[in-house]
Amino acid sequence: MKKIIVQKFGGTSVADTEKIKNVAKVVIREKENGNDVVVVVSAMGHTTDHLVKMAKSLTPNPSSREMDMLLSTGECVSIALLTMAIQAQGYDAISFNAMQVGIMTENIHSKARIVDIRTEKLRKNLEEGKIIVVAGFQGVTEDGEITTLGRGGSDTSAVALAAALNAERCDIYTDVEGVYTTDPRVVPNASKLDEVSYEEMLELAHAGANVLHPRSVETAKQFAVPMRVRSSFNLDDMGTLIVGVEKMELYRPVAGVAADLSQARIVVCDVPDKPGVAAGLFSAMANENISVDMIIQSYARKISNTNDIAFTIDTADLPKTLSVLDKLKDVIGASDIKVDDEIAKVSIVGAGMIDRPGIASTMFETLATLNINIKMISTSEIKISCLVDKSDAQKAVKALHTVFNLESDVIADVKGDLPDV
Amino acid sequence: MKKIIVQKFGGTSVADTEKIKNVAKVVIREKENGNDVVVVVSAMGHTTDHLVKMAKSLTPNPSSREMDMLLSTGECVSIALLTMAIQAQGYDAISFNAMQVGIMTENIHSKARIVDIRTEKLRKNLEEGKIIVVAGFQGVTEDGEITTLGRGGSDTSAVALAAALNAERCDIYTDVEGVYTTDPRVVPNASKLDEVSYEEMLELAHAGANVLHPRSVETAKQFAVPMRVRSSFNLDDMGTLIVGVEKMELYRPVAGVAADLSQARIVVCDVPDKPGVAAGLFSAMANENISVDMIIQSYARKISNTNDIAFTIDTADLPKTLSVLDKLKDVIGASDIKVDDEIAKVSIVGAGMIDRPGIASTMFETLATLNINIKMISTSEIKISCLVDKSDAQKAVKALHTVFNLESDVIADVKGDLPDV
Repeated sequence: MKKIIVQKFGGTSVADTEKIKNVAKVVIREKENGNDVVVVVSAMGHTTDHLVKMAKSLTPNPSSREMDMLLSTGECVSIALLTMAIQAQGYDAISFNAMQVGIMTENIHSKARIVDIRTEKLRKNLEEGKIIVVAGFQGVTEDGEITTLGRGGSDTSAVALAAALNAERCDIYTDVEGVYTTDPRVVPNASKLDEVSYEEMLELAHAGANVLHPRSVETAKQFAVPMRVRSSFNLDDMGTLIVGVEKMELYRPVAGVAADLSQARIVVCDVPDKPGVAAGLFSAMANENISVDMIIQSYARKISNTNDIAFTIDTADLPKTLSVLDKLKDVIGASDIKVDDEIAKVSIVGAGMIDRPGIASTMFETLATLNINIKMISTSEIKISCLVDKSDAQKAVKALHTVFNLESDVIADVKGDLPDV
Repeated sequence: MKKIIVQKFGGTSVADTEKIKNVAKVVIREKENGNDVVVVVSAMGHTTDHLVKMAKSLTPNPSSREMDMLLSTGECVSIALLTMAIQAQGYDAISFNAMQVGIMTENIHSKARIVDIRTEKLRKNLEEGKIIVVAGFQGVTEDGEITTLGRGGSDTSAVALAAALNAERCDIYTDVEGVYTTDPRVVPNASKLDEVSYEEMLELAHAGANVLHPRSVETAKQFAVPMRVRSSFNLDDMGTLIVGVEKMELYRPVAGVAADLSQARIVVCDVPDKPGVAAGLFSAMANENISVDMIIQSYARKISNTNDIAFTIDTADLPKTLSVLDKLKDVIGASDIKVDDEIAKVSIVGAGMIDRPGIASTMFETLATLNINIKMISTSEIKISCLVDKSDAQKAVKALHTVFNLESDVIADVKGDLPDV
């Protein structure tokens, strides 16, 4: 039986018919490699923006059901056009929307989760030698309602299809050449990672590396689907392979450095040190659908028997957060609410740090040498994050990138070539 | 039980979001009349042209299956936006594409015929008080393939839905105020017909009155669905009611005059007068999917034992026709093929002419008085068509319109008011 490769192309890759022709070539190349190919595409370029704009001109709050009906058309245009472009090159191809495949989701509009993918139609068409082009981002409920998957939806469609089909690999084609040790716009000699573990990728994604949506990586991890992030404009470069730690060739203590400049820090001052205060605070936030990232509670002051609770949120959630806190302040007995949005979260990520002591102290020393004040620290098994002044972020990223040997040529020496997959 | 009204709005009626808001008002007005409302919409304005252009830039011959996948997105955009616009006015509404409703068609792409419409989902949602917005022009096969219905598709969707739901009426909203006795651009005092029979409408449609596609009228006739053609910009005008002859208030000998300027006449000269020649000729044309309109075979000349076969076709089919005839000419032994595309077919149509002698002679005399040469004549029970020089067409239409008393005020006197429907 042939190996199945799932390929995903985003909106910029299919932004016009010339680009669609290029995508057709990439697809055909994989077919010519002797593989069965299932392609997942997003809506063309600015299609979604255009549709949203029309909807908003009719009503400020369009129903999410009708938004899903509206937006799901974008991918159907892409799959038809890409299929035509592949057929024009003499290859047998067929397009399917989510309803036709049976990409079954929960009955929740605008952010449904995939619960099952029917594979009979796909397998039958692959057996007939066809290249299959599937609409990403969309799903269907048992009742025949059209849903969309929300942010990162097409990546998630691709990974879920790869899992359902037991595919060899899921290739996410994008306009960058892979996952880098840090943002190349900040550190020009950032090096592309040949491989990275799901866990590292998740931490890098959450820490502000915008290559993949965490949700697709989580799905890939859950079903052990190897993913590749690669460029549709440089096919000779194999990009970055994302796999389980156990499958990785080698560890390095730190795989990457990321900075997230979109956070704000809130300090709720002098709240009584008694049970239930933090729970009340954060459940009120959760009810408003506000994601809280770092949380630090200070030791209780002995005399006043109060402490401070500090946490970070996305700046987009700041107005909502302040409105929640305004109502809560007196209830929980806080003396003051302080806000600082001139901050950045700088993180180092690496599965290798689990076994190697001294990584955290190296990070703190590096920042101290540069006279950068650390405002908050949080750690996970494979990540250490420090909150610093926004103005210090770039300096911090560059220094950490150097001190952990992430420069381009150093990495190349250590890693060697990847085995062919 | 409430009466069900099916409304259909074409592409120009939903060309932009402002127009969609206007359509929402028309829909709500019907709902406020105490009726259940099912709305069928086409793709917005130039959407279809834009999609076709993209497809053609990829390949000169896109597969009809993928064209259906592509084009069917246009109506899905319209239904979502119209539903939002209705909801924005505080009314409960829901959109369905053809797959969701179950508008079942043959498995033929780009010109499928509807074989069945599932009504459970529609009835359930109507019972819940919802206005239902359905995508026109599209269908689905038993295998879940998306099809489109071809020209006149959305009108046909609307009529078929009206038939399946046993609707009170199917209102076709358009940018004209109804069906006229002739093209008002040619005869300024052409009068709007308050009612017309299916048969007359069919002949008028075939004869070049571009208000409705004949296919939708045929479907309406088959299932006895009363149709109304009316303007979405003048709701006080009830437009034209299209019903069975037996339901009409009164007959008039001639209901309308139509001219078709898009025909060409072909004369196949001096073919042997023996059985099978005409059959061979027209089956070759049929195989190429060329529709032949008028056919006249002259009496056989006694000396040569040959005759001429003349027929008319749509000028769009002229190249294909000439290629067929080029191959056939020697086979059937014709001496020459003559083509004339400077012609026009002028027709008078009326269910009333069945019982009244003298209509044809009045037509011929009228043309003779104007010194207009009649090149071919064909008749049906309710239509008489004369082929004339294209340059004579306008003159002929005006004179016939006058001689059969179709001017605006005369008609108004004869007909009186329509009963409320």
